[in-house]
Amino acid sequence: MRSWMLVAAAALLVGAAPKPKLLTPTDIVAQSPASAWKAIPADDLLVMDLSNGGRIVIQLAPQFAPVHVANMKALARGGYWNGATVYRVQDNYVAQWGLNESDKPWPKGVTAKPPAEYTRALKELSIKPLGSPDPYAPNAGFADGWPVAYSAKAGWADLVHCYAAVGVGRDLSPDTGTGGELYAVIGHAPRQLDRNIALVGRVIDGIDKLSALPRGTEALGFYKDKAQYVPIASIRLASDMPASERPSYEYMDTQSATFARYLHLRANRHDDFYIRPASGVDLCNVQVPVRKKA
Amino acid sequence: MRSWMLVAAAALLVGAAPKPKLLTPTDIVAQSPASAWKAIPADDLLVMDLSNGGRIVIQLAPQFAPVHVANMKALARGGYWNGATVYRVQDNYVAQWGLNESDKPWPKGVTAKPPAEYTRALKELSIKPLGSPDPYAPNAGFADGWPVAYSAKAGWADLVHCYAAVGVGRDLSPDTGTGGELYAVIGHAPRQLDRNIALVGRVIDGIDKLSALPRGTEALGFYKDKAQYVPIASIRLASDMPASERPSYEYMDTQSATFARYLHLRANRHDDFYIRPASGVDLCNVQVPVRKKA
Repeated sequence: MRSWMLVAAAALLVGAAPKPKLLTPTDIVAQSPASAWKAIPADDLLVMDLSNGGRIVIQLAPQFAPVHVANMKALARGGYWNGATVYRVQDNYVAQWGLNESDKPWPKGVTAKPPAEYTRALKELSIKPLGSPDPYAPNAGFADGWPVAYSAKAGWADLVHCYAAVGVGRDLSPDTGTGGELYAVIGHAPRQLDRNIALVGRVIDGIDKLSALPRGTEALGFYKDKAQYVPIASIRLASDMPASERPSYEYMDTQSATFARYLHLRANRHDDFYIRPASGVDLCNVQVPVRKKA
Repeated sequence: MRSWMLVAAAALLVGAAPKPKLLTPTDIVAQSPASAWKAIPADDLLVMDLSNGGRIVIQLAPQFAPVHVANMKALARGGYWNGATVYRVQDNYVAQWGLNESDKPWPKGVTAKPPAEYTRALKELSIKPLGSPDPYAPNAGFADGWPVAYSAKAGWADLVHCYAAVGVGRDLSPDTGTGGELYAVIGHAPRQLDRNIALVGRVIDGIDKLSALPRGTEALGFYKDKAQYVPIASIRLASDMPASERPSYEYMDTQSATFARYLHLRANRHDDFYIRPASGVDLCNVQVPVRKKA
């Protein structure tokens, strides 16, 4: 039987009925004014090229983990990741890369034992509240384009482990990791890690180059054979690339009226496909829009 | 520098210190008594074998969507899925399979237009409450081994879109889909679909055979060329397989004391890796334990 079986595909099918089109979150992004967007500095973009041709672009979050992010910039500039690979892919959890148990010395400028940059002072941030309850913290919302959990009462805020979030691998506490071994979330948000590990950014382009990799069969998704490791050709800051090759991105200002409309519609889907809006939304189900600049 | 960079790997590293080991959710599963488990009937297991050798096993949920699940059994027994493929893989969303826009007639016993089996009566279920807030419903918990959202006040309950949940593709409302085209969640739980589409089960083994597939490059993750479709060798009920080949699984009884301990530890991680337990957990981050029977 013919069955078009579209899941949440209303945007493609409207027009069959003459009634006015109800806006989707995607429509809000498409119709947004230029003023609703903020450019990401080239110095906050880490460009990771796999040897297989796949490119992964990471937006760094120096405002949340300044020492770890400074380390990553020093590691990139110092060529630390030459010879790095993706060596761990655990289904519904993380993909992880770096040198894996290497004794390579840290380049100049690296803080070997960074502080525990797990929370920031709430008062330093401008928050757009989520408006829905959060199971992991008293409050949730957005700050400077990032999803955050926070406590209005205790005064802390933290970056959270949503899909594509990038964090710093570490050994057992109180070690916080140096920044040479990194992971990206490729499954349902493992928010139990929030406030227990340093988050340093998020993949804003090419997460599928990690999420579609074969899963490792050893414990925790480590690849069994080194032959399975996925070689990384280079990890560079966009600011260190020739201007003509440099990718450029912008994110939606989470304090803008456009983002407020987008957030409202993410929590109240009412376009043709939906029958019952939830009147609520999970923090990690409101991806802050990010796009390549023309 | 040497860096073992374990993410949440405490279970592998304990023993270095002489202090008593704090239990992890995994320990609770490992130490559970046989009485905490319930067998899944062979008639509720759908075994999908890909032509590439990958096997995906789906536990059906007839108690939540009886007409859609009965349809799926009739489709399997009637050979409807001969020639089926996985034709859509959208990153952080769903993998989808079936015949895709086929005019093949339904086998005998299929209800072409099933009712909207989106919620059940709460009073029919024994609920173990989650104990944490849910952004998508007034209440959340577990019933008969399944994660559910519910309204204690309004009296409804529904199966939810967690990672690996299986649902029935449909066209625009009020169509509910017949069951020939199915999808599995391969990313962060798209709970905005709850109560808007019929969920019929969950992948309990082999979800990585779907989640690690290449992403489709067309709108909504459809594969561009039919050559990219992933052929499905067979979709059978375990009860229709020879007894010697039949896989067998069991799930943890969500009303058991063991599950209560497991749930508590999922919300309060306190083993060696964790510094700050969240004191809360997302419904979809408490995977009900399921295992192969010996």
